[in-house]
Amino acid sequence: MTKGKRESQTSTEIFRFAEARIAIENVSHEIDGGRFPAKTVAEQPFEFFCDIFSDGHDVLHATVTIRPHRKGKNAASVDLEHLGNDRWQGDVTLPEPGMWELEIQAWRDVFGTWRRDTAKKLSAGQDISLELKEARKMVEDALEAKGAPKAATRKNLEALLQRLDRNDDTDSTQTLMSEETFQLMREAQVKANLTTYERKIHIWADREAAAFSAWYELFPRSWGKDGAHGTFDDVIDRLAYVKDLGFDVIYFPPIHPIGKTNRKGPNNTLTAGDDDPGSPYAIGSDDGGHTAIEPELGTLDDFDRLVAAAQDHGLEVALDFAIQCSPDHPWIREHPEWFDWRPDGTIKFAENPPKKYEDIVNVHFYRDAIPSLWIELRDVVLFWIEHGVKIFRVDNPHTKPFPFWEWMIGDIHKDHPDVIFLAEAFTRPKVMKRLAKVGYSQSYSYFTWRHTKEELTEYLTGLTQEECRHYMRPNFFANTPDINPYFLQTSGRAGFRTRMVLAATLAGNYGIYNGFEICEGAPVPGKEEYLDSEKYQLRAWDFDQPGHIKDDIRLINTIRRENAAMRDFTNLNFFTAHDDRVLYYGRMDAATGNYLLFHVLLDPHTPADFGFELPLWKFGLPDDASIEVQDLMHGNRFTWHGVNHRLALHPDARPYAIWRLYPPPGMRT
Amino acid sequence: MTKGKRESQTSTEIFRFAEARIAIENVSHEIDGGRFPAKTVAEQPFEFFCDIFSDGHDVLHATVTIRPHRKGKNAASVDLEHLGNDRWQGDVTLPEPGMWELEIQAWRDVFGTWRRDTAKKLSAGQDISLELKEARKMVEDALEAKGAPKAATRKNLEALLQRLDRNDDTDSTQTLMSEETFQLMREAQVKANLTTYERKIHIWADREAAAFSAWYELFPRSWGKDGAHGTFDDVIDRLAYVKDLGFDVIYFPPIHPIGKTNRKGPNNTLTAGDDDPGSPYAIGSDDGGHTAIEPELGTLDDFDRLVAAAQDHGLEVALDFAIQCSPDHPWIREHPEWFDWRPDGTIKFAENPPKKYEDIVNVHFYRDAIPSLWIELRDVVLFWIEHGVKIFRVDNPHTKPFPFWEWMIGDIHKDHPDVIFLAEAFTRPKVMKRLAKVGYSQSYSYFTWRHTKEELTEYLTGLTQEECRHYMRPNFFANTPDINPYFLQTSGRAGFRTRMVLAATLAGNYGIYNGFEICEGAPVPGKEEYLDSEKYQLRAWDFDQPGHIKDDIRLINTIRRENAAMRDFTNLNFFTAHDDRVLYYGRMDAATGNYLLFHVLLDPHTPADFGFELPLWKFGLPDDASIEVQDLMHGNRFTWHGVNHRLALHPDARPYAIWRLYPPPGMRT
Repeated sequence: MTKGKRESQTSTEIFRFAEARIAIENVSHEIDGGRFPAKTVAEQPFEFFCDIFSDGHDVLHATVTIRPHRKGKNAASVDLEHLGNDRWQGDVTLPEPGMWELEIQAWRDVFGTWRRDTAKKLSAGQDISLELKEARKMVEDALEAKGAPKAATRKNLEALLQRLDRNDDTDSTQTLMSEETFQLMREAQVKANLTTYERKIHIWADREAAAFSAWYELFPRSWGKDGAHGTFDDVIDRLAYVKDLGFDVIYFPPIHPIGKTNRKGPNNTLTAGDDDPGSPYAIGSDDGGHTAIEPELGTLDDFDRLVAAAQDHGLEVALDFAIQCSPDHPWIREHPEWFDWRPDGTIKFAENPPKKYEDIVNVHFYRDAIPSLWIELRDVVLFWIEHGVKIFRVDNPHTKPFPFWEWMIGDIHKDHPDVIFLAEAFTRPKVMKRLAKVGYSQSYSYFTWRHTKEELTEYLTGLTQEECRHYMRPNFFANTPDINPYFLQTSGRAGFRTRMVLAATLAGNYGIYNGFEICEGAPVPGKEEYLDSEKYQLRAWDFDQPGHIKDDIRLINTIRRENAAMRDFTNLNFFTAHDDRVLYYGRMDAATGNYLLFHVLLDPHTPADFGFELPLWKFGLPDDASIEVQDLMHGNRFTWHGVNHRLALHPDARPYAIWRLYPPPGMRT
Repeated sequence: MTKGKRESQTSTEIFRFAEARIAIENVSHEIDGGRFPAKTVAEQPFEFFCDIFSDGHDVLHATVTIRPHRKGKNAASVDLEHLGNDRWQGDVTLPEPGMWELEIQAWRDVFGTWRRDTAKKLSAGQDISLELKEARKMVEDALEAKGAPKAATRKNLEALLQRLDRNDDTDSTQTLMSEETFQLMREAQVKANLTTYERKIHIWADREAAAFSAWYELFPRSWGKDGAHGTFDDVIDRLAYVKDLGFDVIYFPPIHPIGKTNRKGPNNTLTAGDDDPGSPYAIGSDDGGHTAIEPELGTLDDFDRLVAAAQDHGLEVALDFAIQCSPDHPWIREHPEWFDWRPDGTIKFAENPPKKYEDIVNVHFYRDAIPSLWIELRDVVLFWIEHGVKIFRVDNPHTKPFPFWEWMIGDIHKDHPDVIFLAEAFTRPKVMKRLAKVGYSQSYSYFTWRHTKEELTEYLTGLTQEECRHYMRPNFFANTPDINPYFLQTSGRAGFRTRMVLAATLAGNYGIYNGFEICEGAPVPGKEEYLDSEKYQLRAWDFDQPGHIKDDIRLINTIRRENAAMRDFTNLNFFTAHDDRVLYYGRMDAATGNYLLFHVLLDPHTPADFGFELPLWKFGLPDDASIEVQDLMHGNRFTWHGVNHRLALHPDARPYAIWRLYPPPGMRT
């Protein structure tokens, strides 16, 4: 390289480096260095944080600009505020569902720096006549600045110059130090050393149901009259029941034709009788595959009527998306290249050596299956979207490739940003999180296996405080057709009541599988499975039987709906109760002034009489202050005095308590 | 868009997504999403970690490939090993100083998966005749694979096929399940779903002195004979003294001509007498600026001789790089555009309103100073590099723009990867870290202000365990010309001994400023400054005066040199001593089997007699095991039995103890 060329290259390099004088880092919603978007809810303000600082001591100014991804229109800008220790914060709201881009910018506020320093010199009685001249120059510069100021600002800057010309130093000092001039110079926005953060931050905004929803799961085939196979019309008749309990989402395991080959019998036996309906997860028969309806349930028209009826009840239908096939699935004939074939010409069954699952064959996602299978699966989802389904619970997504989900969910979301995907991935923590990163709106969790105060506190602290809170939203199912928790097998009614309260108030999304409301817990002995599981046979349910907990469910769902603090699952705080069997926590929403406290007795067998601390300090109140409180179970309002209180909980009478606090207005949190 | 075009676009998108089937994330040495390189030391192996996992349960294989940045040659590859919980690890060594690129790749090991699953089926007594046929196909595929196998592997694969043709199923099973076939198939490396991590990891390799060095700071002008102004020749006469104490680096405050205008007098007074030498930080006079030598110290030739003599003593000279000017600096005349001028034609002094520093003017780095000033400053550093200086201590780098440092250090490092920069940035934590990220090899720290067991434990745990350990290396100065720590002003000799031990054994880099060895601590009353500071006047030192701690310094520097565990500051562990005034820690290097324990009495006034736990568990030993131990202060070797021990430390007699452990060979750590 010639010397001249090298010098010119050096110059170019220096100018390139120099562009980013201000350090911007540690951005709250940047996941894996920008590899994945964070998630939030449209129209709900959230706190956005980053570190911003520069060399020296100049006053800085920073903003975050919000644009719809790949459109660039409708940019809105939010000022960031310095919290201390170089941490900056702004309240950001994404106005509608979809992908958004955030751009962070910071610059040195030259006039603000002058004003701050000149104030100090004035206090020290120093002569500031040169400073006044310097400030006048700044006003002149503002008129000449790149991206010239708006006409109104320009007029005001010119008027300011004229005033300075007329004034003596004392008047000029007053004029230049005034709040009015400060605001005018801020409007003019001379952005010295304007620095743009090197990466755009991507945030996906969901509609609220992605973060806040109450699910009720049922097998439509069990809801028939007098022991008959249930139909969609039977479900229509029971929508009022589900709505009355306070749920938002009614979710069905697969509703598609069920294979006959190797069909499973009751309790997962290998041979089914002629009348056994088989597992709905063995999808596909001569009647069709993933876009068909099991004839015994009804027709596609019946399904459309069910979706419409649910809407009329304020319920959404969620479907199961289970990418697996019975050996009778039409795809095997139509697309042999999607399956693994063995040297003897047979198809490879699902297996977990040495175990084999002979009613299920799995597609593979690579080799000849790409892109045709990926497109077909996307089209299955689009098919049901066209039939009004906007929520999909996905079966075992961790056994399918991450990139498939990332592509498919992204592709669906391009035209349908209101579609919600729940990942049923009971798997290792990092795999669970990756699925959330690649696009899942909600995730099944380890909740059913967390029982003690220590377990729940540690698990929830992780979910609500660690980085994953920005992309993973747990859905706390209290039970599922696959999980009859050991705890509930022996807890009795008190356990069902408290686990429901925990599920519904520790997470934004939660659900129960039917039978829970009547404390159904009979197991296959020694296993975490239901006896006579609906997965393999029809069941007849009597949800009015004595001992049901429908009153609890109604109450909790009402409390969830009526209290703003329940809508953001990250606002959870654990407080001190002096009993290891009592979980004591709060959901605190400062923006709406909505503050709830919960006491839950984790031991379903023995009463507790314990002391607990009222977190007066959360509101900036002294330890001897009083606070108004309402018992949300009974409605009565009264006053708590001081920090220390006692409470008795009893497995039968009152295994939990829920309180709403009314701190004096204006108290900080 | 036409339907055809859209379909083709979808296809392209799917293939692009599909390329990364395997998740690779949470990479140990990736700083700020790849924005900055991590740092390590050439030729020293380090542990590299990342998370790797995929859908399903296939056996994975992963490697990290190492290449010199922008050259691509000399690639070396290291296998990663699965540690559990989807975390993978490999020992990586970068062979020489410079910037390196690491590429992470992972793939599914199809044959390895077959082997694992078939072993399970064999154990369960299942028929595997189809599995054998499938394996044969894999061998055939390996011969056909992209990037065809090497000739030797090909020959072995062909021989394997022939053997399978000759054998019956029992023999084939044995052949295919053998370790030999496993290794052959691994050599063939059919990389199914080969996934490359989306970003290259950049790691800067320094020479060892960047991470492990002992500094001795002195003002050459004080080392004259009989009260005369010292010269470089006087320093040459004292090199043996510095070396004898065991130091590696001899560091001088600025050696450039000192300005006369507004020169400071003794103890920072505003008026200097004719004989006062002024602050060496007021750089520049008629005798020259940053590339000139203060005439009273000698000539450039004298300096060259000093550098050579230091080398002969095994010492390196470190210079101060202080970007500030006296009002007499030639740059002001030659480059008025680098300075801030006021409306009255005067130059702006350094200030921190309302304080003013009238012997110093600062350059600015933007507007007309770019790129000329940046290039000039780089050339100043190059000038001293040409005179044999490879270590620069940089004064107040946090008041100069980060991008300047990033560009300049990067530019210097292109041709001089062996140059080391130490940042003197006593500033906010994030600013300190940013300077390390943009390229500083070492950082001054908060060590001088951390005294209690709690403070030291918390601070060191952060430095050695948090992410910053990958890019920031503290240099623990026990004192500096600017910091006469309050603690040492009243601690007496015991405090000097223990602070030196802490500095030298808690960090890889440490230093003292002369006078420390004779426990000099007389302050400007009420301030953390030295009385009669050498910054403003000559001092005559008698380093043989009674009460010196030179024996401690020699001993500790010897221990540092002779024990491999001292070379990596992150291998620090704190252990339990039952006295809040005793800091008890270990430096443990499993690779070399070098294990040291340290007890330091933090209270310089009162003895301690305390119990402590010998960390037998670190070596996998039971609580009643014995371990050989050597007292490194006195040399004697003996045996410690069991976990619990007692020790007495005394401020005068023995304020610290250092032990080397000799666990039985083969014990894990």
